[in-house]
Amino acid sequence: PAETKTENDHVIFGKRGMRLEDAINDSNDYYRSHGRAVVYKKPTPVQIVHVDYPARSQAVIKEAYFRTPSTTDYNGVYRGYYLDFEAKQTKNKQSFPLKNYHQHQIDHFRRCLAQDGICFTLMQFADPDTVYLFPASTLLDYWDQYQGRHSIPRREVVAAGYTLSVGFAPVIPYLDAVDALIARTAPQRKGTIN
Amino acid sequence: PAETKTENDHVIFGKRGMRLEDAINDSNDYYRSHGRAVVYKKPTPVQIVHVDYPARSQAVIKEAYFRTPSTTDYNGVYRGYYLDFEAKQTKNKQSFPLKNYHQHQIDHFRRCLAQDGICFTLMQFADPDTVYLFPASTLLDYWDQYQGRHSIPRREVVAAGYTLSVGFAPVIPYLDAVDALIARTAPQRKGTIN
Ligand SMILES: [Mg+2]
Ligand SMILES: [Mg+2]
Repeated sequence: PAETKTENDHVIFGKRGMRLEDAINDSNDYYRSHGRAVVYKKPTPVQIVHVDYPARSQAVIKEAYFRTPSTTDYNGVYRGYYLDFEAKQTKNKQSFPLKNYHQHQIDHFRRCLAQDGICFTLMQFADPDTVYLFPASTLLDYWDQYQGRHSIPRREVVAAGYTLSVGFAPVIPYLDAVDALIARTAPQRKGTIN
Repeated sequence: PAETKTENDHVIFGKRGMRLEDAINDSNDYYRSHGRAVVYKKPTPVQIVHVDYPARSQAVIKEAYFRTPSTTDYNGVYRGYYLDFEAKQTKNKQSFPLKNYHQHQIDHFRRCLAQDGICFTLMQFADPDTVYLFPASTLLDYWDQYQGRHSIPRREVVAAGYTLSVGFAPVIPYLDAVDALIARTAPQRKGTIN
């Protein structure tokens, strides 16, 4: 699908030549080791058909197939909030094609937002120094209006999202924008229930 | 390791003959389809070494290895709260060996609790009709005291946890106990930040 092509033709990232996904994993490791948040990329779902167990050595998976994920790539916890996000990049400079998203990702965002999750995309255009945090709620507005056949202009991403400058520690300082997104969207916790 | 043996020698579950893990997945599907929570089991992490791409057919993974997970098995979002849990079973009737837990699961619980996640174990003894929700914070107290060389008496699980009766819709009604755990442990959300 389109996404695979986009993700393979990756934009070289920042001054360090990292892929977007590696830069996010690196940032997650940084935040985790500094006690700021606990966020992981989910493993690729694989259907395992045949495993060899050679004597005295490690099990080897000999036949397996890629399965379609049900969710987005990243989730975790930050200050009591559930975070859920996707990483997406395009080689375009000024527009982000909605076809980079899959229906299952959209559906998952909708369900998580209904549970008051903090949901977003980390988006990159053909610009190695900038990543945008774009709220999933705005993405869903575009998706519902255009059913995937459209692009989001970069100026709209700038206006509705948060601009992150690629740095070093962490490479992508996305929690700063998450704080702002929480301040803008999260309902006050209603206290405990009984 | 011990866990693998325990999980293979599975306790037949409830009247439906389900494994604990299948019963939890089924319950997660029920809660998700009813808009109650969004919780998934994480895929098994696999390191993929070789993939064949036969013409006109599906890619086949021909060589891959199991990797040690970094986290627990389940996470998701419920009413704005981050949920994180493990499923564990023993064939014992009256005590739960701490060696069923791995260090990485303990470490992960500790990090998630520090971020105000709602963390617990769904625990089953040799009793097909009952599952316990046992708070991770109490598990950590045991772990820190005994360093994995001990069992938790079932009466302690009953006292510090929540008893769930195996049912039908969902099979394991764990959210009822999550409500109680939240009421007991979650800090009031401090409102939005700036
Ligand atoms: Mg992705
Ligand atoms: Mg387990």
